[in-house]
Amino acid sequence: MAENKPQNVVLIGKKPAMAYVMAVMTQFGSGQNDVKIRARGRAISLAVDVAEIVRRKFNKDAKLKSIDIATEEIEMEGKGKRAFSTIEICLTK
Amino acid sequence: MAENKPQNVVLIGKKPAMAYVMAVMTQFGSGQNDVKIRARGRAISLAVDVAEIVRRKFNKDAKLKSIDIATEEIEMEGKGKRAFSTIEICLTK
Repeated sequence: MAENKPQNVVLIGKKPAMAYVMAVMTQFGSGQNDVKIRARGRAISLAVDVAEIVRRKFNKDAKLKSIDIATEEIEMEGKGKRAFSTIEICLTK
Repeated sequence: MAENKPQNVVLIGKKPAMAYVMAVMTQFGSGQNDVKIRARGRAISLAVDVAEIVRRKFNKDAKLKSIDIATEEIEMEGKGKRAFSTIEICLTK
């Protein structure tokens, strides 16, 4: 996951799904053709929910361009490194 | 998700990740070239963990063949239908 936050990326955290669905729709509305939904760890399930809600309810023209999974090692304070799974779902309109 | 359980499918539930990692490795060991890891709802994050652990630690030759996400409607007892996101990660050796 990049350190900076490019325009067309929605990073999934702990908010309700609809907050991220709206963020994706805002990106599409602002002229982005591709929107990347990124998450790690437990938020991965929510990332899939967000992509599915966008595709099924809000933008039926949106297509899955790619889905990638990977592992990221994160330095935990005083606990050494921990590996987290990550997902990036790219939707295209 | 199919009702029957084909040979090369590992369905992710509530066990620890390693239980499913071993199930995937057993499938590869029994001669399967492709193993499909399926999950729905909150178990999706665990499915990604399982795929990543297999690829990184147990079978470095295993490649991601495909990742699909979808939505499944499930009839809840007395609560009508609920939509669940699903994932299918296909690993190939």
